[in-house]
Formats: sequence, structure tokens, C-alpha cells
Amino acid sequence: MTLSVWAPDGAPGVGEGDDLAAMLVGLVGAGGLEDGDVVVVTSKVVAKSEGRVRAGDRAEAIAEETVRVVARRGGTAIVRTRQGLTMAAAGVDASNVEPGQVVLLPVDPDASARGIRARLHQLTGRVVGVVVTDTAGRAWREGQTDIAVGAAGLLVTQSFAGQVDGYGNPLAVTAPAVADEIAGAAELVQGKLGGRPFAVVRGRADLVLPAGEEGPGAVALIRPDGTDMFGYGAREAVMHALDQDGDPGAFGAPMPAAELRELLDTWIRTWVQVQGDEILVEDVEGPRQLAVVVAAYAHGWEVASRNDSSVRLRPSGPFT
Amino acid sequence: MTLSVWAPDGAPGVGEGDDLAAMLVGLVGAGGLEDGDVVVVTSKVVAKSEGRVRAGDRAEAIAEETVRVVARRGGTAIVRTRQGLTMAAAGVDASNVEPGQVVLLPVDPDASARGIRARLHQLTGRVVGVVVTDTAGRAWREGQTDIAVGAAGLLVTQSFAGQVDGYGNPLAVTAPAVADEIAGAAELVQGKLGGRPFAVVRGRADLVLPAGEEGPGAVALIRPDGTDMFGYGAREAVMHALDQDGDPGAFGAPMPAAELRELLDTWIRTWVQVQGDEILVEDVEGPRQLAVVVAAYAHGWEVASRNDSSVRLRPSGPFT
Repeated sequence: MTLSVWAPDGAPGVGEGDDLAAMLVGLVGAGGLEDGDVVVVTSKVVAKSEGRVRAGDRAEAIAEETVRVVARRGGTAIVRTRQGLTMAAAGVDASNVEPGQVVLLPVDPDASARGIRARLHQLTGRVVGVVVTDTAGRAWREGQTDIAVGAAGLLVTQSFAGQVDGYGNPLAVTAPAVADEIAGAAELVQGKLGGRPFAVVRGRADLVLPAGEEGPGAVALIRPDGTDMFGYGAREAVMHALDQDGDPGAFGAPMPAAELRELLDTWIRTWVQVQGDEILVEDVEGPRQLAVVVAAYAHGWEVASRNDSSVRLRPSGPFT
Repeated sequence: MTLSVWAPDGAPGVGEGDDLAAMLVGLVGAGGLEDGDVVVVTSKVVAKSEGRVRAGDRAEAIAEETVRVVARRGGTAIVRTRQGLTMAAAGVDASNVEPGQVVLLPVDPDASARGIRARLHQLTGRVVGVVVTDTAGRAWREGQTDIAVGAAGLLVTQSFAGQVDGYGNPLAVTAPAVADEIAGAAELVQGKLGGRPFAVVRGRADLVLPAGEEGPGAVALIRPDGTDMFGYGAREAVMHALDQDGDPGAFGAPMPAAELRELLDTWIRTWVQVQGDEILVEDVEGPRQLAVVVAAYAHGWEVASRNDSSVRLRPSGPFT
């Protein structure tokens, strides 16, 4: 079985109102697309064509695109975006755009994909799938991969529910996120610097739906908020449990000892002393001691030692 | 720019001691590989060839491969494996293997990849990169993608540090995890049922290193434990902060009301009453009240209402 992934060179810069489908057809030629191809377009040019470019402050743009902060340490914020995506900087990007400007994600990337698909059909008569991609980090892995943030006319996962392997074992939970794998394959030929925002993936026509059927969209690849186990970073989860408004992310490093001393002193009303790099909290027992430990953890401190009536705290790693 | 991804049909079943490189060469022919190709092999057949197949209990095998539990809800456990990978079921797989047996991950997948690379060079004289893949879920996205768990002779990320885009903007944090994208592209042609454990990816020879240079390995794609923000599921983070041995995962659903009532009654020594679906805790103030809230959260309960001296708790969603 063979897959080919082709990213044409020579795409012009994209501005608001540009017809991306026509641009792609111009690059690949009238006969360049076949039924069953999957056309991949970066969200960067989709957003530009939709006018989702802002001058000015990146932090402000990120705040506008953020529904809630998932985790934050120092300058790095992982957030849930308006589109439901969990990613750094809410998908707001300052690369491949005029200096001083930022590009936001398309408002509805599945709708963008449907629009491009319909226009490609109009221009070429071909029935293709369309994937709109963005670059995203992962919770436990270094580097980024491109993922599908929009999709049209495509099965985004391949379900094996009810099927068995060659040995008769059921494949109940196996569901390859093929739209994400297509996005990653396209990134391998598009790259970040070559000016190749389009790619054509040929060889998985089985995933492409007939004209008029759009499939579930890339939104189906989003685990709904509150159904995953990683809705908060570890420290944020503790703040959430405390039902407090505090922001552990404000302290990329552990909260300064003097500040934590004051916080505990005010709050727990007990003997709190800074001793070198550590903090000693005395006369705290049972639930009160637990409250000290939890509050300290939320602010980047951990237990160095403890007994029935006191706790010694030390700064913990910057992220845990 | 073009990439081709080819998965040959007709691979025989793999047993302990089998020569995977010779098997691949048999399938693609003597001239089937070129310098700069990336050969992708599933960890499933690598593990089988290395005798990493166990008869019997899957749960026991998972426990053996687990370094620590990251998050657990009901029957789903996300763990850190001996290889440093964060994945469900510690990479222990019961598909594409004789019923009653399970396949573990290779002990050192980077070493496996180096072995296959060296043997391919010996057999064909070609200098290729090798990726060993496994199928993994993601924190915030549905479905799975194949990722690189082993790599040899390959740049696993492409760094753009110090480079600028066409507009002069720096690309400081951009580092595509190309080995993972290659793994995903290969999955698109290998599939789960076709008996195609090998793939050849052609078109990114720039990522393949000269003979004798192995590169950083797929281990470089693992975010070191303690440097991410998602080292624990939300509830597990709270248990961790509490410095307790309890296991919230034992309660996929919220802990039964009667059990939580008893726990709080014993621990906080106050008035705790089950009222319908809720639990009322009275005479708790300040840090003691906080301890109630945190302990309840860790066991799947959340605050329905509270005032200065009492808390009303209700079951929370099964995962949050």
C-alpha cells in the first residue's frame, strides 16, 4: 500500500479575501487533483484569508482566544481555546506574518474546510477531503506535530470497533486519528519555511466521503472538556480543589519564601519561619497540617519532612 | 516537495529470534531501499522478535512495565513505562498476538532501531534511518496516533532555533517532532489489520544521518518526568499534594457516599450526613473546611455549596 504526499512550491502570500482553492488549483494544475485525494491547508493561510490577523499585542490576542487556562508556568500557558483545542498560546502565532502582527486560529476551522472543499469541487469537479492544520505541542512529548483542527468530507478516525485481528482478538478501543496522521504527514513536506501551505495526500481514498457528506469534522477529535484526566496541570488541579482563585502560574518558580511565609501565617495563624532555603511551620496538626501542605504545593513547595505537629517545606521543581 | 510512504504486503508472522531486516529486504527486494530512506517497523514485531511476549495475565504485565501511575479512572490507567513513555496500559498489547498472550514494548527501542539499521546496512549497503513505532493516545484528543518509540540514524526533531521566517520573525520554539510525524504517516499505510508491520518513507533524506551516526534516539522525544505540567491527572495531583497513598482511580465513579461519609467522619471528626445524593459536613471552618473540600475532590466529589461553617458536597463528573 502506498501513500504520496506532495506540497507544491510557489504559493504566493495570502491576504484577506483570497480564494485558497483557486490558488491551489493554480499551483497543481487543472488535472492535479484526483477523486479521493486529501487536500491539506495550514490554518495560517486559512486564517489570513479570513482576516484573522491582528496588529499588536500577542498577550491580549491570547487572552481573547482563551476560554480557560489549563496550566501555566512562567511564560508558558497551556489553554483551552474557543475552538475547544488545548494548546500553548491559544493557537496565536507570530511567525510567517508581518512583524508586529499575530495570526489567530480560524473561528470555525471545520466550516473553513467545508468551504474549501466545496470550492475545489466547483473548480475541478473532484471530490476530495480537506484538512486544516495547526502545529501543537503534546503533554508528555518534546517538539510539536501538526494536527487536524478542521476537516471536511473525511473520516477523521478509523474505527475498528467490532472487528477482530488475524488471531481473533477484538480491536475494541483502536481508533487511529487518521486526520491527525495526515496533518503530520503533510507537515513533513510543507515544512515551516518553504512557503508551502498546501499539500495533497493521495492513497487513502477510503477515508474520503462522497460529495454532500462532510463527516464529523475535526471537532470530533477534541476530547470534550471535563471528560479527560488532564483538564488541569498538577498545581492548577490543586488550586481547583482548593476552590481558590489564586494562580500558581504566576510563580513559574516556587513562590518566594517570604511571600509563602506571610500567606501561611495569615491564613493558618501559626508559627511560620523561613530557615535558609526552607520554611518551618510549627504547631499544625491533622487537617490544619494538611491545609498547609496543599497550599504550599499549589505554590511550588513540597514537604521536606514532617511529624505530627510540624512541617518543613522546600521549593519543588519548577514544573511538577 | 514529495514524500512517498510504502508498506509492503505479505510479511510473514514474526517469532522470537527472527531477523526483521532480512524479512524486510525479502519483501522489498534487493534494490528496494535507497540511501536516505526511513524504514519504519512496528514495536509489535520488534517485541515479538525479541521474545517480549508473555502468556497470561495482562494486568500483571502492565504492573511489571509500570514505573508509576499518572492517572487512573475505572478500567483506564495512564502510566509512565520503564521506557519513560506515558501511555495507557504501559504499552502492553493483546492484539495481533495469539489469544491469551500479551506483547510488551521492547526493553530499549532505540537499541532495537540501531540493530535493525546496522543489519539493513550489512544486507543492502544502504544508509537508512529506522523508526520503531507504537500506538498511543493523547491527553486532550480522541483516538490514537502512531509515535516513534525508537529511532536510529535519524534526526527526531527538526530545530529552527536561530532561524527566521520570510518576514524576519524568529522561530525560537518551533521544533517539529518529525520522527513522530513519520510514524503517523507510516500508520496510514500499515493499518492495524493488513499484516504490514514495515513501511519505507522516502523524501526526507535530509533527516537521515551518515553511517556511524545514530542521532539522539526517540528517547529525546520524551519530556523528562517532573518537567511537564501533566505529571499527574487532576485528582492524582491532589492525592500527591495530600502526600497520601490513596488511589482515586479505584473509584472510576465518585467514591460511594457512605464510604466518603465514614472517611470524613473518622478523619475530620465532625458532623457528616448523607442527604439524598449529597453529603453535608457541618462545623468545619477555615483550614479544616479546606481539608474536607480537598479530600472530597480527590475522591470524586465537589462543592455544591458552602458557608463559613459548613460544606455541602455532590458527586462530580467521572473524570475531571
